[in-house]
Amino acid sequence: MTFTSSFTTLETTIRRRIDNKTKPLGALGRLEELALQIALIQQTETPVLTNPHLLVFAGDHGLAAEGISAYPADITYGMVKNFIAGGAAINVFCRQNGLTLLVCDVGVNGSFDENTPSFVKYKIRPGTRNMRYEPAMTPDECAAAIDAGKTLVNGIQYRGCNIIGFGEMGIGNTSPATLLMHRLTGLPLEQCVGRGTGLNDAGLAHKLAILQEVASHHIGLTDPMAILATVGGLEIAAIVGGMLQAAENGMIILVDGFIATSALLVAHALNPAVLQNCIFCHQSDEAGHQQMLRFLGVRPLLNLDLRLGEGTGCALAYPIVQAAVNMLNEMATMDILD
Amino acid sequence: MTFTSSFTTLETTIRRRIDNKTKPLGALGRLEELALQIALIQQTETPVLTNPHLLVFAGDHGLAAEGISAYPADITYGMVKNFIAGGAAINVFCRQNGLTLLVCDVGVNGSFDENTPSFVKYKIRPGTRNMRYEPAMTPDECAAAIDAGKTLVNGIQYRGCNIIGFGEMGIGNTSPATLLMHRLTGLPLEQCVGRGTGLNDAGLAHKLAILQEVASHHIGLTDPMAILATVGGLEIAAIVGGMLQAAENGMIILVDGFIATSALLVAHALNPAVLQNCIFCHQSDEAGHQQMLRFLGVRPLLNLDLRLGEGTGCALAYPIVQAAVNMLNEMATMDILD
Repeated sequence: MTFTSSFTTLETTIRRRIDNKTKPLGALGRLEELALQIALIQQTETPVLTNPHLLVFAGDHGLAAEGISAYPADITYGMVKNFIAGGAAINVFCRQNGLTLLVCDVGVNGSFDENTPSFVKYKIRPGTRNMRYEPAMTPDECAAAIDAGKTLVNGIQYRGCNIIGFGEMGIGNTSPATLLMHRLTGLPLEQCVGRGTGLNDAGLAHKLAILQEVASHHIGLTDPMAILATVGGLEIAAIVGGMLQAAENGMIILVDGFIATSALLVAHALNPAVLQNCIFCHQSDEAGHQQMLRFLGVRPLLNLDLRLGEGTGCALAYPIVQAAVNMLNEMATMDILD
Repeated sequence: MTFTSSFTTLETTIRRRIDNKTKPLGALGRLEELALQIALIQQTETPVLTNPHLLVFAGDHGLAAEGISAYPADITYGMVKNFIAGGAAINVFCRQNGLTLLVCDVGVNGSFDENTPSFVKYKIRPGTRNMRYEPAMTPDECAAAIDAGKTLVNGIQYRGCNIIGFGEMGIGNTSPATLLMHRLTGLPLEQCVGRGTGLNDAGLAHKLAILQEVASHHIGLTDPMAILATVGGLEIAAIVGGMLQAAENGMIILVDGFIATSALLVAHALNPAVLQNCIFCHQSDEAGHQQMLRFLGVRPLLNLDLRLGEGTGCALAYPIVQAAVNMLNEMATMDILD
């Protein structure tokens, strides 16, 4: 080892490795950034993605009683059954792209056939309380949901997974996500709220009025954990825990759309370093998502007008992430052109 | 069959099928548009993608002698060897995403080991003439290159392929692509020209001056075939032929970046219907590409700052196209939620 190279940082080494591939400098754009990020997360010139997982947390929302969603609350239950049966969009995309899907009930109002390897029951309670009248969760319930996320991520890492996406299902959950965004970014509610699964103008106005009422009760709250418990959701809290644990474990985190990014806003407020492990998979069509991404100073990989949640953006972006790693490991170097 | 449904068009049937999947209306955004387009191309409610191919045409350019590229002309030869050896970006991405790669020499200045199943020799001549002084191709040479594209596409379809992407390799080929764009869109050369593989400001100014000189010699040309022969390239002409044939055969066409889209501009001028079969895979970082896409009135799937060519955008977008088809065929319908 020469004097010079002993002072070479890993980042410099990886950048040189990328620049020396058989392509013009920088010609693979975002893939080159991705390859560098992943190599730095794994602290190696030859990163690998192993046993990718997609973890969907599901929970119901007491606030759904206030008519803030275009769909009735029991769709949460039906969609979790659909996940277990393999018929939802996230099942289709995970199957196609080789991600193992695990569905975790942290708060659904209903029970499921538990004898299914793709299903985990970790129920804190059958849905949050109606935050129009009381905090969505007690501090203990919120901590338990966070712990569910941490525990599952540790278990999945033990299986050999080093890259994980987080999805969610919970009718009404754009409302807690909107309130979390409002409190953690400081943006006015009007810039955070959106149509969710498809509210019309009147529905959107009603949702905004309800959220303004809820927000007005908690103007003094500043602690991220207290905000999460008060205006969050069980599935959102579980994602917060999952993201924090994944970052601590050195795993790559695939960030989905509006709800998952609201969980990241909480995780980021608790530990800003979590951002280094995050790949932002897509920009959702839900109105506030673009502002969330701008607040975090990040750029998503895809923009396909998705607004489905479930982690679908993660599963769809995964092949691009894999391509970045394969580029680094498999492409020839410039010397073959000499 | 009821009176009503006998009048139902296939498009209406497919839209209903998409709307009835277990998701909010429209929540899969661009994937829903893609699924509809593919189903209409294949005239079925249950489309399939079979034996996807990526066809890279390679050719040299006489104009490269004028110093309009950041790389020397013999890189074309070296990169084709790299394709054959499996070390280029397009090899990596095709392997990952299950596309069969075929490399066709229509005009490279050099010869290759032909005993390789992934390589086809269909050489018209070893590079175009220098269009600064004479037309790049004679009408016969241009027709032969178009025919090479058509013949290969027919052969690939015979293998059972119904979706094909077109890539290219040819040092200097952003120059003919720029001139084709200029003549076929009517946009001034300044809005068409870009840095290609990485020209600096002086190099870009020189390239523009050369292209202005070439364009000034051919102001009267309006016939797309004559324009293609005069200021095109052998690999570009082969792609024109390949795209026209693929559309005629009812195949799905994956459109890559600046060079491939310049070929589509020619194909589109000859037969506007070709556009119905095209999926625009990405927006290149090459300056003029966005304007090309705007001229065609289309929106690309990806925007990853790529400017490599080779068909890399097609190979990277392919899993999204597959996801759209899988969504249509595999997702459950709303009745399971009742």
